[in-house]
Amino acid sequence: MKNCDLIIQSDYLVTMNDQFDVIEKGAVAVSGGLIAAVGPEDEIAAAYRSDKTIGGRHTVAFPGLVNAHTHSPMVYFRGLKDDLPLRVWLEDHIWPAENRWLGHEFVADATELACLEMLKAGITAFSDMYFYGEAIALSVKKAGMRAVIGAGILDFPSPAAATVDDYLANAERFIGNWRGDGRIIPAVAPHAPYTCSPETMKRAKGLSERYRLPLHLHLAETEWEVQEVLSRYGMRPVELLNHHRILDNTVIAAHCVWATDDEIGMLARSGTNVVHCIESNLKLASGIAPVVKMLASGVNVAFGTDGAASNNDLDIMSEMATAAKVHKAVSGDPTVLNAAQAMRMATRSGAGALGIGEKTGSIEAGKSADIVIAGLNRPHLMPLYDIYSHLVYSMKSSDVSDVMVEGRLLIEEGRPVALDEGAIVEKARYWGNRIREKA
Amino acid sequence: MKNCDLIIQSDYLVTMNDQFDVIEKGAVAVSGGLIAAVGPEDEIAAAYRSDKTIGGRHTVAFPGLVNAHTHSPMVYFRGLKDDLPLRVWLEDHIWPAENRWLGHEFVADATELACLEMLKAGITAFSDMYFYGEAIALSVKKAGMRAVIGAGILDFPSPAAATVDDYLANAERFIGNWRGDGRIIPAVAPHAPYTCSPETMKRAKGLSERYRLPLHLHLAETEWEVQEVLSRYGMRPVELLNHHRILDNTVIAAHCVWATDDEIGMLARSGTNVVHCIESNLKLASGIAPVVKMLASGVNVAFGTDGAASNNDLDIMSEMATAAKVHKAVSGDPTVLNAAQAMRMATRSGAGALGIGEKTGSIEAGKSADIVIAGLNRPHLMPLYDIYSHLVYSMKSSDVSDVMVEGRLLIEEGRPVALDEGAIVEKARYWGNRIREKA
Repeated sequence: MKNCDLIIQSDYLVTMNDQFDVIEKGAVAVSGGLIAAVGPEDEIAAAYRSDKTIGGRHTVAFPGLVNAHTHSPMVYFRGLKDDLPLRVWLEDHIWPAENRWLGHEFVADATELACLEMLKAGITAFSDMYFYGEAIALSVKKAGMRAVIGAGILDFPSPAAATVDDYLANAERFIGNWRGDGRIIPAVAPHAPYTCSPETMKRAKGLSERYRLPLHLHLAETEWEVQEVLSRYGMRPVELLNHHRILDNTVIAAHCVWATDDEIGMLARSGTNVVHCIESNLKLASGIAPVVKMLASGVNVAFGTDGAASNNDLDIMSEMATAAKVHKAVSGDPTVLNAAQAMRMATRSGAGALGIGEKTGSIEAGKSADIVIAGLNRPHLMPLYDIYSHLVYSMKSSDVSDVMVEGRLLIEEGRPVALDEGAIVEKARYWGNRIREKA
Repeated sequence: MKNCDLIIQSDYLVTMNDQFDVIEKGAVAVSGGLIAAVGPEDEIAAAYRSDKTIGGRHTVAFPGLVNAHTHSPMVYFRGLKDDLPLRVWLEDHIWPAENRWLGHEFVADATELACLEMLKAGITAFSDMYFYGEAIALSVKKAGMRAVIGAGILDFPSPAAATVDDYLANAERFIGNWRGDGRIIPAVAPHAPYTCSPETMKRAKGLSERYRLPLHLHLAETEWEVQEVLSRYGMRPVELLNHHRILDNTVIAAHCVWATDDEIGMLARSGTNVVHCIESNLKLASGIAPVVKMLASGVNVAFGTDGAASNNDLDIMSEMATAAKVHKAVSGDPTVLNAAQAMRMATRSGAGALGIGEKTGSIEAGKSADIVIAGLNRPHLMPLYDIYSHLVYSMKSSDVSDVMVEGRLLIEEGRPVALDEGAIVEKARYWGNRIREKA
């Protein structure tokens, strides 16, 4: 009989291991932040002892969800303007708001709200791309989550920097501050092929290679981008980055809505990780990424929410449900993107995209205890025939009750343990009022 | 100063009246089940006195949502089988399950679960099509909701009846029992043009006309149906019903996914009410209805969840969000189906489709007090710039706190008042276990 820090019991322990094992009346022993053992409840009870047991009857446990592409501080612009053409929305509303408001305090406060929203929705890790990475990292650290935090790079000035040299120097300083942290992974984030020249892309890539860190970028999001890149460089966006040897398995490429069959081949062969942000792509009328083809070609596809300004939430469960349904209609085949596959994309594929697949993304002995528990004893989850079906098609993020990262409970019975929800909500209201007055 | 039964106060009172008025710090005085007055909080406070006030700071109040097409007892088949081709799903799983299980007790118990799920999600009225209407009506009555309950009619035998004569006799008996009820409206529900001959359709229409009741049917749901109807009758489904003078403003036509421009014209001119069930249509890969064109042509389009077996929930907020996003991508225009329009479809258009637009669908003096209150003081709803945006793009049905029909509180602070949630969930588990054993 060994001691452990905590035991999780669950009617359905959805491991997301290679065999997609679901253990009915399963348990997990957690010790020193790691998963010590996984198995049937009675086996774990016979081998491990702990003062604390969570979960229990009428719950499901699954690996922490991964939000592989977001701009978390943009939660403060949630619903600022909707239902507008993309360029009007960006140029008349979002960019002016960013230029007016962005700064360390704004970004730190907004990121705390984003972390709280994500944690409550069962998200334990995310990949961010924005500015003021230092502020983002401090808030993520406080929240107890994992994040890949990309330092944004553009060919033009923004509140964060004036020149490409400045952006790169900021990125390198940020990397120096956070490299080696257990939960924060700094990254380099050249915005997109239409906002960063191939030269800038190559410099960003060089920086990411030097420190062996992810390269996070937008790619082939809109048809306009494809035409713009084609007219400037004579190549389509994916083709262009492939030509300049930017693509490999350290790249987190958001969107890829307009990837052709040839380009899907390039993404597959290079090992590029694609992040499917279906709700944002739908809402901005950007299009619907050929995800079924990408999966068939062996591309690693994860889910992302994009920023809350274009979504308007940070909810991976909702992305799973939307994607699993929309791709059936678009392909005319109700068997594509089944529930277990969607769940895999939201967990293991996400962890793989962030480069932390060895550490998280499934419930297996030796991995970090990044685990979510949700309640099943609810009218909208009755009756239950297939747990994957429920996770993808019926469950809401509001069913999440407990969330842990590295074995530390961050949400317990629906309430944050470390973060102060009342204070975070008050700060959001304060900033929201200021932004509204100037909008 | 007049006495009233109850006062609702809310930061945002979303009336859904003709002017789309939103009253900030608004109030509603409720008296005798009706809305006595609507206005700014201070005006209502000066004119009305009540022992009970609900809502308050950080809430939004809006008209009860309408689910204009569902098969509520199918909640017991939620997630029984997913990700299968439509015919396999229906013929190998759903129909055999129905043939084995359907009966008065099953339908009554399942409907109670459906009502509870809908109420908790802010749905106050729905239009149902199934069998054992008596059992459905009794459960709806117990739940305190409003419903149009269609007695199903088919050209072939089912557990409910053996011949068209039997189905029609059942329907007429059901009409006799419930006609004149304040909240239950019996209706005639010939299943679809591919399962009911024009002769059967005409007999069903005759019955609905005799009693001035709605005619609820499926129409042009799949491409297969179009081909089947074309090959049998030489006309497309909408065209066929138009030709036989079935279509008018008492018709509730679910789906209409495959309506051509000509057929959209027929729907518009006849005043037929179309129910858009986007999540079910996506999940079954049936296609995406041309809703933007329908709205532009003046068709009254409401939202429906369809049965929980193909959705897999009864959540109109989720339908709004999905529809508002998907149609932007499909039409390549982010300005279509804006948030206020989506909200209108979920409330007034739904009430209109059910033929109860005079009574419910908006918060206006003289209408029934069918009102929902939801909490806004939550991380995923922070900050707030536009209440319609939040209702459609950010809010979840789990944010609903209070729901009333005819001024009677059915959900109070998230919990059912009249229904016994524990007992309903236990019954669902009992039936689910029996169904699973035989599946």
